[in-house]
Amino acid sequence: MKDERTRAFDLDAPVRRYITKKLIAVEHDSTVQDAASRMVEFGISSLAVLRDREVVGFFTDADIKERVVAAGRSPAVPVSEIMTTELITADVTEPIRRILDLMSDHRIKHVLITEHESIVGIITLRDVVDMERRRLETYIAGE
Amino acid sequence: MKDERTRAFDLDAPVRRYITKKLIAVEHDSTVQDAASRMVEFGISSLAVLRDREVVGFFTDADIKERVVAAGRSPAVPVSEIMTTELITADVTEPIRRILDLMSDHRIKHVLITEHESIVGIITLRDVVDMERRRLETYIAGE
Repeated sequence: MKDERTRAFDLDAPVRRYITKKLIAVEHDSTVQDAASRMVEFGISSLAVLRDREVVGFFTDADIKERVVAAGRSPAVPVSEIMTTELITADVTEPIRRILDLMSDHRIKHVLITEHESIVGIITLRDVVDMERRRLETYIAGE
Repeated sequence: MKDERTRAFDLDAPVRRYITKKLIAVEHDSTVQDAASRMVEFGISSLAVLRDREVVGFFTDADIKERVVAAGRSPAVPVSEIMTTELITADVTEPIRRILDLMSDHRIKHVLITEHESIVGIITLRDVVDMERRRLETYIAGE
């Protein structure tokens, strides 16, 4: 019985329970270099991009590698030229299982989280592994 | 009983069982731009760096962001100037649980895998999530 409850909790619990971090953002006209510095400062691997207080794009370590360095572009270009505009999101009320599916199906490492259709947070691949690790610790502690 | 075996399998199984990818490498005198292009070509987020056929360093998306773009350095510098030389490894005979511990304790996304003290492969944060997903699918299929 304990096992069933533990397992049900993991996958069917709403995303809301697992959002631990605020989403960090930069303005659309920031340079790629400034955006990269901000990511380093906060120890994160993705950023939201804002225009008129609205999230208009998303920007990751992989974009810096692929669309700037490998492509031979200058880090002085604005993030708006590099960002991804197709945002992949899940609602806070959806089960955590949905996050795993999105990350696997789209080969992405970050899913933006929405509530009432506004973006309110983010869940990363690392968050998923950290959750798993906590689940294991809880299981071991309960043995 | 089935539950116990499934859980034991996951964490105590040797790392060997989970290595699915070859480690991709570049020579130490490759430029950062060439290394980034190679990572894009293979769809990977890290590379081993070789000198005289030996792995002397490791290079990731995060290094490109932090030590090249945020630091304002040219992508024409050799990877040897940017790479991490302190390699974090696990042996193929160690349990998969050890990989989770290393990724969490060192805040890293890639662990190099050794066999008889030679580097033979890599396990990434994504691999761990993919394993977890397969475990869940197996569990669901077995219900």
